[in-house]
Amino acid sequence: MAMAAEKESTGEVDLESALLPSSSVESLPLLAHSTRSRQHSHLRSLRRSASNTTSQIAIVGSDPCPIESLDYELIENEEFLQQDWRSRGRAHILRYVVLKWTLCFLLGALAGAAGFLTNLAIENIAGVKFVVTSNMMLADRHLWAFGVFAASNFVLTMFAAVITAFFAPAAAGSGIPEVKAYLNGVDAPEIFSPRTLAVKVVGCIAAVSSSLHVGKAGPLVHTGACIASILGQGGSRKYRLTCKWLRYFKNDRDRRDLVTCGSAAGVAAAFRAPVGGVLFALEAVSSWWRSALLWRAFFTTAVVAVVLRALIDICHRGKCGLFGKGGLIMFDVTSDTIAYHLPDLPPVIILGIGGGILGSFYNFFLEKVLRAYNLINEKGYGYKLLLAATISICTSCCIFGLPWLASCSPCPTGISEACPSIGSYGIAAPSGLFIPVILTGATYGRLVGMLMGSRSTLDHSLFAVLGSASLLGGSMRMTVSVCVILLELTNNLLLLPLVMLVLLISKTVADALNANIYDILVKLKGFPYLETHAEPYMRQLTVSDVVTGPLLMFNGIEKVGNIVHVLKTTGHHGFPVVDEPPFSDSSVLYGLILRAHLLILLKKRVFLPSRSLFGIDVSKQFSADDFAKRGSGKHDDIEDIKLTAEDMEMFIDLHPFTNTSPYTVVETMSLAKALILFREVGLRHLLVVPKSSSRAPVVGILTRHDFMPEHVLGLHPSLLKSRWKRLRFGKTSLNKVFCDLC
Amino acid sequence: MAMAAEKESTGEVDLESALLPSSSVESLPLLAHSTRSRQHSHLRSLRRSASNTTSQIAIVGSDPCPIESLDYELIENEEFLQQDWRSRGRAHILRYVVLKWTLCFLLGALAGAAGFLTNLAIENIAGVKFVVTSNMMLADRHLWAFGVFAASNFVLTMFAAVITAFFAPAAAGSGIPEVKAYLNGVDAPEIFSPRTLAVKVVGCIAAVSSSLHVGKAGPLVHTGACIASILGQGGSRKYRLTCKWLRYFKNDRDRRDLVTCGSAAGVAAAFRAPVGGVLFALEAVSSWWRSALLWRAFFTTAVVAVVLRALIDICHRGKCGLFGKGGLIMFDVTSDTIAYHLPDLPPVIILGIGGGILGSFYNFFLEKVLRAYNLINEKGYGYKLLLAATISICTSCCIFGLPWLASCSPCPTGISEACPSIGSYGIAAPSGLFIPVILTGATYGRLVGMLMGSRSTLDHSLFAVLGSASLLGGSMRMTVSVCVILLELTNNLLLLPLVMLVLLISKTVADALNANIYDILVKLKGFPYLETHAEPYMRQLTVSDVVTGPLLMFNGIEKVGNIVHVLKTTGHHGFPVVDEPPFSDSSVLYGLILRAHLLILLKKRVFLPSRSLFGIDVSKQFSADDFAKRGSGKHDDIEDIKLTAEDMEMFIDLHPFTNTSPYTVVETMSLAKALILFREVGLRHLLVVPKSSSRAPVVGILTRHDFMPEHVLGLHPSLLKSRWKRLRFGKTSLNKVFCDLC
Repeated sequence: MAMAAEKESTGEVDLESALLPSSSVESLPLLAHSTRSRQHSHLRSLRRSASNTTSQIAIVGSDPCPIESLDYELIENEEFLQQDWRSRGRAHILRYVVLKWTLCFLLGALAGAAGFLTNLAIENIAGVKFVVTSNMMLADRHLWAFGVFAASNFVLTMFAAVITAFFAPAAAGSGIPEVKAYLNGVDAPEIFSPRTLAVKVVGCIAAVSSSLHVGKAGPLVHTGACIASILGQGGSRKYRLTCKWLRYFKNDRDRRDLVTCGSAAGVAAAFRAPVGGVLFALEAVSSWWRSALLWRAFFTTAVVAVVLRALIDICHRGKCGLFGKGGLIMFDVTSDTIAYHLPDLPPVIILGIGGGILGSFYNFFLEKVLRAYNLINEKGYGYKLLLAATISICTSCCIFGLPWLASCSPCPTGISEACPSIGSYGIAAPSGLFIPVILTGATYGRLVGMLMGSRSTLDHSLFAVLGSASLLGGSMRMTVSVCVILLELTNNLLLLPLVMLVLLISKTVADALNANIYDILVKLKGFPYLETHAEPYMRQLTVSDVVTGPLLMFNGIEKVGNIVHVLKTTGHHGFPVVDEPPFSDSSVLYGLILRAHLLILLKKRVFLPSRSLFGIDVSKQFSADDFAKRGSGKHDDIEDIKLTAEDMEMFIDLHPFTNTSPYTVVETMSLAKALILFREVGLRHLLVVPKSSSRAPVVGILTRHDFMPEHVLGLHPSLLKSRWKRLRFGKTSLNKVFCDLC
Repeated sequence: MAMAAEKESTGEVDLESALLPSSSVESLPLLAHSTRSRQHSHLRSLRRSASNTTSQIAIVGSDPCPIESLDYELIENEEFLQQDWRSRGRAHILRYVVLKWTLCFLLGALAGAAGFLTNLAIENIAGVKFVVTSNMMLADRHLWAFGVFAASNFVLTMFAAVITAFFAPAAAGSGIPEVKAYLNGVDAPEIFSPRTLAVKVVGCIAAVSSSLHVGKAGPLVHTGACIASILGQGGSRKYRLTCKWLRYFKNDRDRRDLVTCGSAAGVAAAFRAPVGGVLFALEAVSSWWRSALLWRAFFTTAVVAVVLRALIDICHRGKCGLFGKGGLIMFDVTSDTIAYHLPDLPPVIILGIGGGILGSFYNFFLEKVLRAYNLINEKGYGYKLLLAATISICTSCCIFGLPWLASCSPCPTGISEACPSIGSYGIAAPSGLFIPVILTGATYGRLVGMLMGSRSTLDHSLFAVLGSASLLGGSMRMTVSVCVILLELTNNLLLLPLVMLVLLISKTVADALNANIYDILVKLKGFPYLETHAEPYMRQLTVSDVVTGPLLMFNGIEKVGNIVHVLKTTGHHGFPVVDEPPFSDSSVLYGLILRAHLLILLKKRVFLPSRSLFGIDVSKQFSADDFAKRGSGKHDDIEDIKLTAEDMEMFIDLHPFTNTSPYTVVETMSLAKALILFREVGLRHLLVVPKSSSRAPVVGILTRHDFMPEHVLGLHPSLLKSRWKRLRFGKTSLNKVFCDLC
């Protein structure tokens, strides 16, 4: 095992440690390393303020949990190449293709069914509640009516909160930030587990039925992603529901594709908008997209549409209780003939500007409220439930009480603004953002329409649609997908030009004020989201400026004790493997080995008695399944592997299990350029090699965290004081435009 | 200058040339190199059959012309970093952002206007022709009518053919293959020049007016791309229409974004389908896509929609001659209430299957016809014009004659199938494919509907829409974009489920038979199109297996004579720069220098008298504009640079102009994995470095051509005989499914 120092930001090299032949370090006790690195980091701290300020913990739902990066790199080692089914001819490829489309079909069918069941349950529960309350009101028993209304809401909310808090905290909230982070390459345990799926569906039904101002679109996206992930990993190992055939999909790339299709299916199920679902997945949640994926996502959402239509057809025969009397969101503008002229444009433009301002204000306020809720939630289960209970009672009071304040005119539709949608989110229950925004926006639009009065010839229902569009544009900042979803909801294409205009205006206005709602949530939850574009200051830094040491490496044939020690004392997930003389003519970077693969080697005890190249043939002891990527959030732990003192003195030949062609960049490359490679190819580890061949063959490893602005600015606080700070962290309105639109 | 041998496919290294210190080769006459390389390649030919079978020539329009790769890499050299406006603060960034959106606005406005003018001119010319002919027919002067009809068609066709053949051969054909190839990173001269733009618009008007069965969608996409490219390069230097401010856009990345928006604007203008335009650009033409681009393309197409609406509104006041009496394609199903039930599905499924088969047959037949036309076109201008004339007369005869054969029933709409749309394409005139496919598909659908008779309750107009969808799905293989374009054309969202079903079926059926029409055209034209997915055999090859030598390198300070000789004798566009002792402690890869930059250095004569590091400060002699990428297809030529014998003995310090951080891969990486990097990051050159540091610091350069199946299989003909051949080159139907859908 060897240690090489990283290059300093000034470009000077710590020659002492870099020139130290790495093989000679091997015999040093490991404690010495850490002492050395401590001295080293002390030296470094003269120039840098902190070693790593980015956390490996993110808030999933309402609880903090450890996170991990995903790896989309092709791992090329001897073992994998031998086992790889892609090189095994037609039968495997055929099976893979058939399975892939079957999975998409199943995914569409299940997501459609889940969407339908959610809707059915919500409408029946909310419907019964409504009927009972209304009957009591008609009998003039207002206090009783309020009591029943508030009590049922309270019970439903508490039920949702309790199952979420105690059984699956990862199911709390909208779920879209988690899905978005996953598709960006950040994995958190339990976000796609069967338990989360179950709680998500049941909790969403309870939360929406309880008259909270929350939606089901987000939860359905999360549900779709859960179904996709569970299908892809071939069921759950925990519940002994696995399928051998699905081993083709046990890697992050195929899983990413499935989860993308799953999120498209979720939106399609929530709005009955198959095209809108595909575009939503493309525009709002996915970080990587290919043409082939468009086609597959389209297939999935088409299945969703067919399943939904079939199930609704069955329901229309009257076997589904109160279903179908409310239905999905319906803007009643289908029958109207839309005609608009130049004089109609000013109100529409005003509506768009207002929607943009309101949308960004909504985002701003939501962030503040969620921060406050997080403080409360951190105090424990009791406080979580108390928060949920308080919100439920407040909401009941608002909904029941506010109509009394207004006269019986069409005006009261305006009140759901006065009872802000914002206040009802952030509690530990599955709840979506999309539909509240649509409803609030529709109310806002209708209000504007009424204020316009006779000055505009446009229909009020049209104003409602445009209001929704403006608030969606201002809050979620989606364009094409919102356009298509609204068209699919309203079933009227003549609206298109006006919807586009409103969206363009509101998005532009809101982008000048703050970030979109999902980016705010992803950031608030602490996911290390990798942006496509580089920050301007990243062009001024080289990769060696951000690499933090000490770098831990293994020899091609490494002592078991060293491996165990390194795995126990560090949290790194990848280690360079370096061959030293006499095993090679000079110090050569053999490749990169993953922690997960090392753990498998230790578990299987493929040990050699001595440091020799010609050991036993280890490849026959493994099948491809051994190295298949485990399900989301699951991995082995070094603490679970028990080895004897004798084992510790033995050796492992790492060569057959090392990825021999990791992607590398030269240490003088700018951080911005390295980010392009890291982001576009979807890497987990990126090796940094020295410019000169006379030094150690690798000088550092870049991971996702090294590209995070917090980390980079933590290492180089001087950048914060420079002009780049003003560009990125300033409060002026144009900054966001720069970063978003460049 | 030095030469290093590439590694052989067996993994052995030609030690003699690899270990030869590169500095010592410098004094060898260059002739010796080629002798050596000839010997070397003779040795190599024992294992490999050919050195490079991919052509650097492609057929643009109907003429062959040289092509070049585009480069999306960030070039990091001292000169560029100093000049780069991104590091120059807010004013530049603000100007960039404002300009970018202004360009999109102008692009939308101009593309909208071009679409409108094209439509206006076509309808007036065709309308006058129709009125005159009809009047003669009504007066029973049938022969005269035919004479006028055929003569006007002949004149129009010949006019289109003459201007295309003599003034802008690049304007021939649909133009979408050229745009698709450009967006994949292949540039051909003149494809986006002002002359091509002018001929494209005028020629398209003449060709469509001449009753040829051709469309305007493809030409409008090309027109949009032309406008985008010309706007982005700040006008044309040739016509002295340039703008200094636009230097921010003088690089391939920004130009790619603009051209993508331009192609979206073209489709939006052709069909008045703004959302469909964006999706068409995403699905059918672009190779790289980002979320930010979606938003920008959407803005552009929104402008197109507004401009079109405004212009049409003006026309409706009756100042545009015959315009508006025909209008854009209109499926008259808006007013119908669409109702369909389970029994309606079988005919729809049959329609889809039939459409898939017909679509793939259309593609197959089109390819054959175009191959035949190419043979004719190659013989010279006379043959080109003769071909156009023949087709014009045949088409006139068909259109005029065939209705006489049928009785006066609705049936004759079926005849445009008998007069195949295919026969009228491929002549040297701007002509699109999209609308012929829509029309033929509509005819096919109506025919199926009539054959169904009373067995189906669906409307015949609905069958026409579904027929169009099935043929589009079968021929172009687009899904989401065709869906949305058809919805925007028919203005009826209730069709969506049926359209989706038909598209899914026809695309699946057709994919099993052959490739999509644009891929066939791109291949036929010889563009080296870089696919997203790797072929299965690419996993079996390492990058060193496909690198063809000899590799030409430069020293950090290189003799002018050597540079000139290399530039004159090779066509390479990038050369590694290697520092040798005593300028560095060992042989070090300093970076990569581009041919274009070398030419600028030679032109400016920034020469040093001797080989010393501390020469004159060269950086002040250059501005960022000098290194800006020239317009599409334009570049300096080494033959234009006159240097004296004295100059030839001097030196150039290449260091400040060398890209110091080119992307590199290790020689043992599989070709499939290198392709991922090459394709995702959008590279032009990818350096291959050796595994061991004891050898020359670079062993080869990969370019686009090295990833082309023809090149790889030319080098390794044994792969053709292996099972991979069957997978890729076999005739069985599943192969295409594997490659397309994996």
